[in-house]
Amino acid sequence: MTERKEFRDLVPPEEAHEAISSLDLAGGTEHVPLGEARGRVLAERIDASLDVPGFDRASMDGYAIRARDTFGADEADPARLELVGEVHAGEAPDVTVEEGTAAEISTGAVMPEGADAVVMVEKTDTERVEQSSTDETSGTAASTDVLVRTSLAPGDHVMLAGADVAAGERALGPGTRLTPREIGLLSALGVDEVPVRATPRVGIISTGDELVRPGEPLDSNAGQIFDVNSYTTATAVEEAGGEAVLYPHAGDDYDEMERILTQAAEECDLVLSSGSTSASAVDVIYQVIEERGELLLHGVAVKPGKPMLVGRLDGSDAEQRESAGGSAYIGLPGYPVSALTIFRTFVAPAIRAAAGLPEPQTATVDGRMAAEERYSEGRMRLMPVGLVTDGVGETLVYPVDKGSGATTSLVEADGIVEVDADTAYLAEGQAVTVQLFSADVRPPSAFGVGEDDPALSRALDDLTNPRFLSLGTREGLRRLRNGVPDFAVAAGPDAADADYPELGGWTREWGLIVPDGNPERVSGIADLVDRDLRFINRGTNSGLRRDFDDALAGLAAERDRSRRDLTDAIDGYGLTAKAHESPARKVAAGQADVGLGLRATADELGLGFVSLGDQPVRVLANDDRTGKEGVAALDAALDSVEAVLSELAGYARD
Amino acid sequence: MTERKEFRDLVPPEEAHEAISSLDLAGGTEHVPLGEARGRVLAERIDASLDVPGFDRASMDGYAIRARDTFGADEADPARLELVGEVHAGEAPDVTVEEGTAAEISTGAVMPEGADAVVMVEKTDTERVEQSSTDETSGTAASTDVLVRTSLAPGDHVMLAGADVAAGERALGPGTRLTPREIGLLSALGVDEVPVRATPRVGIISTGDELVRPGEPLDSNAGQIFDVNSYTTATAVEEAGGEAVLYPHAGDDYDEMERILTQAAEECDLVLSSGSTSASAVDVIYQVIEERGELLLHGVAVKPGKPMLVGRLDGSDAEQRESAGGSAYIGLPGYPVSALTIFRTFVAPAIRAAAGLPEPQTATVDGRMAAEERYSEGRMRLMPVGLVTDGVGETLVYPVDKGSGATTSLVEADGIVEVDADTAYLAEGQAVTVQLFSADVRPPSAFGVGEDDPALSRALDDLTNPRFLSLGTREGLRRLRNGVPDFAVAAGPDAADADYPELGGWTREWGLIVPDGNPERVSGIADLVDRDLRFINRGTNSGLRRDFDDALAGLAAERDRSRRDLTDAIDGYGLTAKAHESPARKVAAGQADVGLGLRATADELGLGFVSLGDQPVRVLANDDRTGKEGVAALDAALDSVEAVLSELAGYARD
Repeated sequence: MTERKEFRDLVPPEEAHEAISSLDLAGGTEHVPLGEARGRVLAERIDASLDVPGFDRASMDGYAIRARDTFGADEADPARLELVGEVHAGEAPDVTVEEGTAAEISTGAVMPEGADAVVMVEKTDTERVEQSSTDETSGTAASTDVLVRTSLAPGDHVMLAGADVAAGERALGPGTRLTPREIGLLSALGVDEVPVRATPRVGIISTGDELVRPGEPLDSNAGQIFDVNSYTTATAVEEAGGEAVLYPHAGDDYDEMERILTQAAEECDLVLSSGSTSASAVDVIYQVIEERGELLLHGVAVKPGKPMLVGRLDGSDAEQRESAGGSAYIGLPGYPVSALTIFRTFVAPAIRAAAGLPEPQTATVDGRMAAEERYSEGRMRLMPVGLVTDGVGETLVYPVDKGSGATTSLVEADGIVEVDADTAYLAEGQAVTVQLFSADVRPPSAFGVGEDDPALSRALDDLTNPRFLSLGTREGLRRLRNGVPDFAVAAGPDAADADYPELGGWTREWGLIVPDGNPERVSGIADLVDRDLRFINRGTNSGLRRDFDDALAGLAAERDRSRRDLTDAIDGYGLTAKAHESPARKVAAGQADVGLGLRATADELGLGFVSLGDQPVRVLANDDRTGKEGVAALDAALDSVEAVLSELAGYARD
Repeated sequence: MTERKEFRDLVPPEEAHEAISSLDLAGGTEHVPLGEARGRVLAERIDASLDVPGFDRASMDGYAIRARDTFGADEADPARLELVGEVHAGEAPDVTVEEGTAAEISTGAVMPEGADAVVMVEKTDTERVEQSSTDETSGTAASTDVLVRTSLAPGDHVMLAGADVAAGERALGPGTRLTPREIGLLSALGVDEVPVRATPRVGIISTGDELVRPGEPLDSNAGQIFDVNSYTTATAVEEAGGEAVLYPHAGDDYDEMERILTQAAEECDLVLSSGSTSASAVDVIYQVIEERGELLLHGVAVKPGKPMLVGRLDGSDAEQRESAGGSAYIGLPGYPVSALTIFRTFVAPAIRAAAGLPEPQTATVDGRMAAEERYSEGRMRLMPVGLVTDGVGETLVYPVDKGSGATTSLVEADGIVEVDADTAYLAEGQAVTVQLFSADVRPPSAFGVGEDDPALSRALDDLTNPRFLSLGTREGLRRLRNGVPDFAVAAGPDAADADYPELGGWTREWGLIVPDGNPERVSGIADLVDRDLRFINRGTNSGLRRDFDDALAGLAAERDRSRRDLTDAIDGYGLTAKAHESPARKVAAGQADVGLGLRATADELGLGFVSLGDQPVRVLANDDRTGKEGVAALDAALDSVEAVLSELAGYARD
């Protein structure tokens, strides 16, 4: 094994961009059928190989005539021409228009020989002419005359061959993106196969012994988690115009990693490794790149670019290795938001360039900081941010995912703000440009924070693109005070005191959730204190917890003991769950005897319930946002939900 | 056959929108694998079915400890704990952390029983401790102590089970568009199949006996043309979020049309007919809809909506017909730009709505009229327009395709401006909103009009997204005077007089193109006048024609005859071709003896050439646009081309 190369310094971001640009991701030219060419980029100029139309073409329904025959004709004094035949679209004319004659013609039909103009049918009349035959046995013959009530110039209502597109004309240039319009022009030219830039193939390798691909069985006790980065990165690759190829999950074993990496290098233009935060997996990849390729840089001086790797990989086929020089390689950080951030900033532009695609027009949005933000580090920062539209339609920007690695922050983060290394402070209201994670990303229609509640969830289902962070009543009210969200949801004692415009409100019955039939015959909180029952609590931000603690305080006062004495006596008082259903699910799974929760939840999951009371739930609006469209939509959705509150057990109108 | 229903009045556009909204295009819910869910829209709310993480998880590399054991520890006075084991990510812990002990732990690993915090490795040291064994045969045993140089609180560097996402929590709402972020959250939840709105299936039927699908042989003599609308419409359907199904081309025969329409109705949510301008084909479709469905409206009071049909179609399966009620049907106009205009305005929104997709953010652009525009008709107008960016970055809007039906105007038309029925006049500079044909459409980087030239074509190949209309020198200079394009290309006598900033220029050798070896021994224009040679000319807008006519005038003067006498004597003087290569191609194809053209063209096509002189070609900039990025890029591209002009026969630097 070679000595591990020293990369003492993190390289500046510009150097990382340069290193990636120096890698060749382009896959050459491929030919695709016209019907599959949408969105692709022409690899070569396309000149017209034929005239469009390919013949002199009637552009009106009417009569093909010789213009000279109509000179001087008008309403009062029409030119009289003998009708000698007809020509339909899609057929070769079987008639010649001699002097004094006309042929009926349809739009799109070939001009018959001799004719040089078309008179539209509205400017003509026809007259049947009886002719006595010289041969008495055949009776009377009839012919038709066309009366032309206007005079025409040669070329009138005729599109000459090649007048639309002439053979040899430059039709579309290299680099043209094929939208319906270009597909239409190519159709007209009879092009049924189009030379386009090949889609860069991007291999995605997930690493880390703990990762399991979605759909496979998960063993949480063995520390397994679902692989988030593989599909996220694959989707981002496709959005950038690449073709994603997912490789089987690689463990931390050197031989296995080498086999998969070199196979991917042989089959792809770029290999991305992604998924693991484990130092040992990164170490193994590092070794493989050093052995079977070249490491160009290790770590970029941006937050979160420290774990980023850039290099080249050889394919497993030794001959190809020498000729083709292998594929490019980029290693992404392990945290999902960090991986997407590095992808968006460094990888997506390279894939787009290889595919010949421009940056999407909606790739950035301008906004201003919703609150001040300070920095201590001397590295450039790619700050993940969420967006919210304020009351006057401006975009507010707030930081999310401060290095937590949470997957929930994936859906809260709309994009990135680049903060220079020498910027220590972003002021509230400061203008910033956000690089969106996807061109499709839009600020949520309504953004709320607060208490988790099933009736609220139903109302949110009626909105298009809402965002709700279930962080509990306290956090909801705290953020509403700071003015960022559009609304907060408060439950329990704190709900009553809050002074904001109310969008909706109800009461819900809360208490202790127990197994079906209440086998332990739990009758109230005293049982939790006095008996040996496994309990699951809610967090201190929750309105449910607040009411539960008040009830405990009441019991403590009754018994003349400290509340602390009582809580110490409850097995699981400190075990808190984040969502309203979680304690109930633990009870249902037999992992607890009692959980704090709602009658509605017990009812839905078929569990027993011991009521401890009703608590108010209030949906409160940010004063500045009551006129916002999404907030009005939420208001209406809450009204609908309130009208059918009785569907939820223990719910009642306020 | 039923009586043809009377639709005397064109319905207002709002009624057409309503009629289309009343048709049900939605295809229900389908389940797709997570890896194929990009861009799709969730059909149902997705709640978390498990906790993320599913276990208490170390979020640092370090040691799992009991926080109480570190109370009071600091740099000077570390807590000493005995190392009792290690836990890696992806494995079940086989160690319990008792009082006074620690276990080495990796980021992502399961917290071992007994431990409630992780101390990061940087805050620790280890010390090897030799212990004399009581059993002398086994020698000296060694153990390791961990010195913890900080004090920790319970929960430090631990992510509790469900802290990221708790089971039962609302994860994503119905109607959510799936971008990489949402795919990431679904991955974390282990969702491998996603319920999404089905893609509306849109059947496309092209009609008209004259249409041939690209790739098939074309008989121009029989008036055949390539089918433009089928692929154009299919591409637009896919852009709007539908799945396009192309049906075999239908002739104008009733039985065949009925068979294909009813088959499509059975298999699709919407059937579009598209392609023919032929009255007979429209008549047949009309009859089929009346017989096998219901016609809701015929003709909309917008230009170009007169030929539009909206209705319902039954499937061919009689049982299904009664239950499902058939598919929707919309008939589009025949001209390509008109078809795309009607599609963009009436059909695309309905497909997007059925697919659950919002209108793309870049679907419109604001600009101002480049010139005034007057209207006489009392119908709403959907005016196809082109875009050009002016010198200060504003978007200028100019009308294209005034009903010509040309396919070339497809690529010139960037979108539509809706002009109300009661608007008779749009002033120059008036603000208008353009509905783009595709969200990907952008104004050209540089927009030019003028003389067709092979050296120019090479320069254009170096630009991204240029637009050049080869309409000849005169039209180029006329439009440059009116200030719309960025540049004009002039050749011949008119080129010398034009007074604009010059971006590039050269001379090219022009003359008569003849078959290889010059079998007719043509020596100059006198042969065209005096001998019986079939000639192909260029149009009067062309700089080549201008020089040719001057040469003819010279010959006329020499012979003391009128120019008209000479032109009348040339067989084909009036037969003009649009592009510089077209006459040469006719000569190559044996359809003409002599063509007007360039030495470069004769050279490239292996034909003979009789020189008549050199003419200047000048690329002239709009004074206001010399600072524009695309114009600067053209300037540079022209420099590159001029440097290798000798590659083109008969070309020389100016």
